[in-house]
Amino acid sequence: MIWYKEKNNDDIIVSTRIRLARNLANYPFPNAMTSEQMRQASREIENSILNSNSTLSKSFKTYYIKETSDVDKQVLTEKHLISPDLLKKQEASVMISDDDSMSIMLMEEDHIRLQIILGGYKLDEAYETASRVDDVIDESLKYAFDKEFGYLTSCPTNTGTGLRASVMMHLPALTMTNNISRIISSASNFGIAVRGLYGEGSKAYGNLYQISNQITLGLSEKEIIEKVKNIVNQIAEHERDARKKLSENNKDYLEDRFYRAYGTLKYARSLSSQEAKTLLSDIIMGKNMEILKDINSNLIELMILAEPASIENKAGKRLTPDERDKMRAEMIRNNI
Amino acid sequence: MIWYKEKNNDDIIVSTRIRLARNLANYPFPNAMTSEQMRQASREIENSILNSNSTLSKSFKTYYIKETSDVDKQVLTEKHLISPDLLKKQEASVMISDDDSMSIMLMEEDHIRLQIILGGYKLDEAYETASRVDDVIDESLKYAFDKEFGYLTSCPTNTGTGLRASVMMHLPALTMTNNISRIISSASNFGIAVRGLYGEGSKAYGNLYQISNQITLGLSEKEIIEKVKNIVNQIAEHERDARKKLSENNKDYLEDRFYRAYGTLKYARSLSSQEAKTLLSDIIMGKNMEILKDINSNLIELMILAEPASIENKAGKRLTPDERDKMRAEMIRNNI
Repeated sequence: MIWYKEKNNDDIIVSTRIRLARNLANYPFPNAMTSEQMRQASREIENSILNSNSTLSKSFKTYYIKETSDVDKQVLTEKHLISPDLLKKQEASVMISDDDSMSIMLMEEDHIRLQIILGGYKLDEAYETASRVDDVIDESLKYAFDKEFGYLTSCPTNTGTGLRASVMMHLPALTMTNNISRIISSASNFGIAVRGLYGEGSKAYGNLYQISNQITLGLSEKEIIEKVKNIVNQIAEHERDARKKLSENNKDYLEDRFYRAYGTLKYARSLSSQEAKTLLSDIIMGKNMEILKDINSNLIELMILAEPASIENKAGKRLTPDERDKMRAEMIRNNI
Repeated sequence: MIWYKEKNNDDIIVSTRIRLARNLANYPFPNAMTSEQMRQASREIENSILNSNSTLSKSFKTYYIKETSDVDKQVLTEKHLISPDLLKKQEASVMISDDDSMSIMLMEEDHIRLQIILGGYKLDEAYETASRVDDVIDESLKYAFDKEFGYLTSCPTNTGTGLRASVMMHLPALTMTNNISRIISSASNFGIAVRGLYGEGSKAYGNLYQISNQITLGLSEKEIIEKVKNIVNQIAEHERDARKKLSENNKDYLEDRFYRAYGTLKYARSLSSQEAKTLLSDIIMGKNMEILKDINSNLIELMILAEPASIENKAGKRLTPDERDKMRAEMIRNNI
């Protein structure tokens, strides 16, 4: 099941992602490959997965970037199944498991970017699944691996384990109280990055932040995951404290703000993607703080479905920004 | 029935008011009277009305300003039954008919300020009723009247007929399209004033404007009323045109705006008086333009009941501004 549809009782942690970067030994890194080499390497990796007699019994759908429509490309990005960078590579492709929990990007920055994405706080489970797929590929292909450095990657920041463990957190109270920048810089001292929803440089619309390890070298996979967990738990604690304090000191303000957000989402006839996310974030916070009651919609799913390409995808055609804002408002008010 | 509860199918004209200014011949004007003279003149006028064997079969409640609570004073002002000026006079009083359609202010700027206020567009009906009361007083008391100038008044701008004919209009489209200032100055060229809700200098929150004659001398009562009607009809025509053009060119914008206003009023937990009026004005416009449907509340009544003192009056106690904003939001969302 795609991550945002999974049942998730955590009031702060939205989703978990494990990413492994791998390269084949007998090819140069993608930025130095010919198109023909890229196609050949991709075929080898695809076959190693599809032809394996392993516990990996998933079936995959492969999207070849040059054959994928603009809307599909953006929908996959909005669902976090691929990185924006993948779209810039004409010879790249992505294998997506039928249950949407696994995506294997080929010829992005590295030959293989294997990604497991699950709803809720499931770092261990996601890592175990990623490892199993990693083993399956490793059985039939030879990875670029160095005894001293570990897995070699195109960019040195991924060398070593090639592991990025990320957790998506909803941090409205820390944002509202202007504590988020302090959190970001102090996490950074521990080698942990706090970023917006779509990775580096992106803004945290909807108060969703990705917490992930910056360092992949010199620590074991387990150590990296424990480190991320440790910081995530601390940030969650801070967020809970901030919510508690806000609730004690600004209850009336919050109640008014959350109900207004609900009223606007319930009645507006036009909503920009940014406004929709901001208001949905308020409602999620209100629901989690038990100020708003009787809201049973999956609000994170609504945030994803409110993204521009998801709206166009639903409409089945290109839309002007105005048409999109109208359809977004309609979609949200019918589902809230 | 008080004016804002009357059934009114007009989509622009909210209410009608006729005011007659009169003074007794055997007293100086109020600004030159002793307290004793004020009390005596007030008693004479009261008796002339209460003891008359006339068609004027109404019963009255008299409020003596110095004995009236602050909340009652403000509620009477908010309902337009008295002028803010009356409250400044310690010896002043007001007789209010049981059906709230008639108010007779004593010792305000003039000895008598007789006022008929009706819901909808009823200038002739209001003037006839005012005339009948005027005749009743005239039967037993002697008015300050000059053959050349007509009725004498404390301020020369009211001398002559002593008549002010006003119509309260809801002009959201002219306001939205920034045409209102042009309307105000052009009406002024015809001796007609366009003012905010509470008279001179007050702002037109909720896009409610009072249209009234500036000149009381040199024209007969009928001529004054015709003149006001003429301008009111023209302004109504302009408002209707502006609504039509907005509807043709900005339908989507309006629809979104009106529904958002509804959503906010339906869900907000705190509303200032000004915000409530602005949003209610949007909803009235949306209802009249048939963009918002199924709204059956009396929205003008809600605007009046949303005024600060009306809220306090309903609560039965003094409230802080925060408490008032919360009660206002509750009152509105329960009634919309």
